Amino acid sequence: MSRLLLNCDIGESFGSWTMGLDSEVMPFIDCANVACGFHAGDPGIMRKTVALALKHDVQIGAHPAYQDLAGFGRRSMAYSAQELQDILHYQVGALDGICKAQGARVSYVKPHGAMYNDMMANPAQLRAVIQAVAAYDHSLPLMLMATRDNAAAQQIGDEFGVTLWFEAFADRAYDSAGRLVSRQLPGAVHHDSEKIIEQALTIARGGELIASDGSVLRLRANTLCVHGDNASSVAAVQRIREALKQSSAS
Amino acid sequence: MSRLLLNCDIGESFGSWTMGLDSEVMPFIDCANVACGFHAGDPGIMRKTVALALKHDVQIGAHPAYQDLAGFGRRSMAYSAQELQDILHYQVGALDGICKAQGARVSYVKPHGAMYNDMMANPAQLRAVIQAVAAYDHSLPLMLMATRDNAAAQQIGDEFGVTLWFEAFADRAYDSAGRLVSRQLPGAVHHDSEKIIEQALTIARGGELIASDGSVLRLRANTLCVHGDNASSVAAVQRIREALKQSSAS
Amino acid sequence: MSRLLLNCDIGESFGSWTMGLDSEVMPFIDCANVACGFHAGDPGIMRKTVALALKHDVQIGAHPAYQDLAGFGRRSMAYSAQELQDILHYQVGALDGICKAQGARVSYVKPHGAMYNDMMANPAQLRAVIQAVAAYDHSLPLMLMATRDNAAAQQIGDEFGVTLWFEAFADRAYDSAGRLVSRQLPGAVHHDSEKIIEQALTIARGGELIASDGSVLRLRANTLCVHGDNASSVAAVQRIREALKQSSAS
Amino acid sequence: MSRLLLNCDIGESFGSWTMGLDSEVMPFIDCANVACGFHAGDPGIMRKTVALALKHDVQIGAHPAYQDLAGFGRRSMAYSAQELQDILHYQVGALDGICKAQGARVSYVKPHGAMYNDMMANPAQLRAVIQAVAAYDHSLPLMLMATRDNAAAQQIGDEFGVTLWFEAFADRAYDSAGRLVSRQLPGAVHHDSEKIIEQALTIARGGELIASDGSVLRLRANTLCVHGDNASSVAAVQRIREALKQSSAS
Repeated sequence: MSRLLLNCDIGESFGSWTMGLDSEVMPFIDCANVACGFHAGDPGIMRKTVALALKHDVQIGAHPAYQDLAGFGRRSMAYSAQELQDILHYQVGALDGICKAQGARVSYVKPHGAMYNDMMANPAQLRAVIQAVAAYDHSLPLMLMATRDNAAAQQIGDEFGVTLWFEAFADRAYDSAGRLVSRQLPGAVHHDSEKIIEQALTIARGGELIASDGSVLRLRANTLCVHGDNASSVAAVQRIREALKQSSAS
Repeated sequence: MSRLLLNCDIGESFGSWTMGLDSEVMPFIDCANVACGFHAGDPGIMRKTVALALKHDVQIGAHPAYQDLAGFGRRSMAYSAQELQDILHYQVGALDGICKAQGARVSYVKPHGAMYNDMMANPAQLRAVIQAVAAYDHSLPLMLMATRDNAAAQQIGDEFGVTLWFEAFADRAYDSAGRLVSRQLPGAVHHDSEKIIEQALTIARGGELIASDGSVLRLRANTLCVHGDNASSVAAVQRIREALKQSSAS
Repeated sequence: MSRLLLNCDIGESFGSWTMGLDSEVMPFIDCANVACGFHAGDPGIMRKTVALALKHDVQIGAHPAYQDLAGFGRRSMAYSAQELQDILHYQVGALDGICKAQGARVSYVKPHGAMYNDMMANPAQLRAVIQAVAAYDHSLPLMLMATRDNAAAQQIGDEFGVTLWFEAFADRAYDSAGRLVSRQLPGAVHHDSEKIIEQALTIARGGELIASDGSVLRLRANTLCVHGDNASSVAAVQRIREALKQSSAS
Repeated sequence: MSRLLLNCDIGESFGSWTMGLDSEVMPFIDCANVACGFHAGDPGIMRKTVALALKHDVQIGAHPAYQDLAGFGRRSMAYSAQELQDILHYQVGALDGICKAQGARVSYVKPHGAMYNDMMANPAQLRAVIQAVAAYDHSLPLMLMATRDNAAAQQIGDEFGVTLWFEAFADRAYDSAGRLVSRQLPGAVHHDSEKIIEQALTIARGGELIASDGSVLRLRANTLCVHGDNASSVAAVQRIREALKQSSAS
C-alpha cells in the first residue's frame, strides 16, 4: 500500500435523520468508515451505505463506537477491555452481516469518536482494540492515528499480527508530538483550501510538516481522513483527490 | 436430520439482569437460540452464551427480534419487509461476529417472539424472513413452527433454497389447524410431566396428537422447543432428552 | 377558545441530528408539539425547544410516542392500554420536568405518529390515552383529529373530564368520513398554497369542504396542524397565519 | 430531621427482567430511590414501584443515572454540566409524571452509580447536580455521601438553597477521609450482621467509627443506605430498623 488512501466517515444518518453528503463524497474516496448502529447508522442506513460503497468500488470499513446514540459516540465511557472487545465484535459482525447480504465484506476497522480518542490516549485500550480485531479476523487492518512515533502502536499490532493503517489529517494543525491541536485552540483547523491541499501533498510524500511549536514533524501515514459533512468539505475532498493524482503521476 | 433436536431460547439475560438457567439447561439441548441484542442479550452476554454452547457442543442459532428491549420483543411492530430483512442481517451478523471471535459460527436462524408470531401469521413476513436468510447464507436453516400443513412455508423455503426446520411443542395444546391454543384458554399449557414426555415421544415418531377440538393432528417436526426458565422446566428437558434417547435406542 | 390555533411538531432533532426549521416556524404558531425522547428529542433538544417556545410565547404541548427511535415513532406497536398510559405519564412528566426547570409547564398533549393513528383507529386506545391525560392532570387538553363526527371521542373526553382540541389539516384531502386521504393516493396532499390557505380559512369559519368523493364535509376544529419541515412549509405557515388574522379582523 | 432514615435502591427491574426484593424490603425503609429509566426501571416498573412505596408510606426519591442500560449506569460517561442537568430534569420529571398519575410526587433526588461517584469525586459535577435540583424544585433535598468533611458540599447546597441529606453505609469500611474503601480491597464490605448493626447504631448516634487506617472517623449522616438485593440483605435491613427503633426509644 504505497499511495495515500482517502478515508471518510460515512453512513452517519439514523432513522429519519440525515447527516453528511454520502452520495456526493463517495466517488472521491477509497475507504468508507461505516457507522455500525451504536453512535449512528441503523440497519437500513447501513444497507444503503454498503450499496453505495460497492457502487463506487470503495472499501468498507467498520466504524464501531461506544453505545451512546444521544452523544454520537463522542463521550468517553468507562468500558472495560473485555466490554470493549465485545462491542467491537458485535458491531463489526453486524456490519459484516449487512455486507454479506450484498456479497461484500468488511475490509478494515476504524473506531469512532471517543473510542478512537481513548484508544490513542490509553495503550491498554489500544491493545484491547487490536486484540479484538485479531480475534475477529487478523487479516483486517486497523486504522489509527499517525503520531510522531508510531512504534509503540506498531509493536502491539505486530504482536497480534494485525496490520495498522496510520491516518493523518490535512485540515488540522499538529503539535510537536504529532497529536492534533485541540479544536479549542486558535489555528487548530485549517480552513484555507490551498493550505489543506499542501498539507495533504506533504503527508503523501512523507515530507516535513511544521508543528504548532514550530518544530519539524514527519508523519508516516497510509491514509488521509477527509470529510463529507457539507458542500465545501466535499469540494475539498475532490481537490485533494485531484492533487494526489497529479502528484503521483508526475 | 432424522432425530428430533431439542432447541431452547438461551442468552436472554441483559446487562446486570439475569434470566433463565442457561448453564443448567445447555448440557441437555442440541440447539441454542441465542438472543442478539434487540430483545435481550448484550454483547457480553452473547460472548458468554456462545462459549457455553461451544463447551457443550450445542449448535448456535441466531434468535433475532424486533428492537424492543422494554417489551422483550413480544410486541408486534409494523416493520416493512425491507426493514425486517435489515434487522435480521444486522442481528445475525452481530452474533456471527461474536461467534467468529471464538472460532465458531451461527448455524441456523429462529426469529423471536412477535417476529416469530407475525411470520407465522403473515406469509409476506415469512417470505421476507426466508429471503433475508437466503441473502445472508442460504446454507443456514430457518426454524419455524410446524402446523397441520407445512406445504405453503416449504414452498417459499424451496423457492429461496433455504432449509426449514419445523418445530413442535411438547408442553402446549394444539388446535385442529396445528396452531398453539392461546395461553388465555384453559388447558393451553401442559404442566403434567408425564403428558409432556408422552407428547414429545408422539411428535418424535410422527404419531397422532389430539387437537383441542378432538380431531387428530399429525405434525411433521424436526425439532422440539424446550425451556430453561426455571428448575422444573430444566428437569423436564432432562427427562425429555432421556425419553427420546431410550425411544430411539429401542 | 374560538380562534383557530396553529399547532406544529417541534423539537424533533436528536443528538447530533437536526430536523425541522424550529426557530423559523416558532414565531408563527400558537402551540408547539414537543417531542419527548421516545421518537425524537433528547433532553438537551427538549430544553432548547422549551426555551424557544417560551421566547415566542407559544404553548408547550407534550408530543409523546411509541418507543421507537429508529422508526421515528411511525411504526404501530402492540402496546397494552396499561403500557400506553405508562409511557404517556413518563414522557409528559419528562417534558414537564424540562419545563419546570425553566419556570414553565406542559399545557396540552398530542400523541405522535403511530400512537396518534392507532388512537384515532381504535376507541380502546383513545380511551387509554384520555384516561392517562386525566390521571396526569385533567386540566390538560388532548389534541386529536377532527373527523365528520367528533361525538364518540367527545363522549370519552366528557367521561374523564378532559377537554378535547380537534385538529384539522389545510394541506390534506379528506374522505367523506372526515379522515385524511392516504398519502399513497393522488391528490392526497395539497401543494398549491392558494388552495391550502383557502382550506385553512374554510376550516376556521366552519365552512364546507369538499371530500374526495365529492360530498360536503364540515369539520369542527379548534386547531390547524402546520409544518416546519422546510422553507416552503414555513412560508405556508406564515401565509396561513396572516390570512387567518385578516379574516378574523374583518 | 433527627432520626436516621433508611434509604434503599428500588425499582431496578426492567421489562421482563427482575432485580431486587422490592416488596420484601419496602416495609422496612423510609426512602425509596426509584430508578427512572436510564439505568433501570421502565415506565411500567416505575408505576408499580411508586404504588408499592405509597402503600408503605415510603418517601419516593428520584434515582437518575447516566443513559447506559447495558452498563446499569455504572460506567462513568463524560457528560457536560449542561447535559447532566438536562438528563436530571428529564428523569426526575419522568418519575414525577408517574407519581402524579397516582396523586404522589418525588420528594428527593439521589443520583445513581457512576453519576453518584462522579459527583462525589468532582466538585463541578456536584455543583451541576445541585443546580439542576434547585432549578427543578429547590425544596427537594439531594442525597449524597457523608464524608469526613461535608463542608464543601454543604456550601454549594447553601448557595443554591438545596437541602443536603448525607448518607452513610453500615456495611462498608471507610478510609480516613470518610470515603468507602474500594470493594477490590479486603475488608471493604462487612458481612457480619452484628458488625453491620453496630456500625448503623454508631452512625445514628454520631459516634466514632474506626477508619481503615485505624484513625477515628465521625460522620454526620441523615440517612443510611441499605440494600434489598437478596434475602440476607433484607433481613439485615429488618434488624437495622429494629435496632434503630430500640435505640431511639431508650
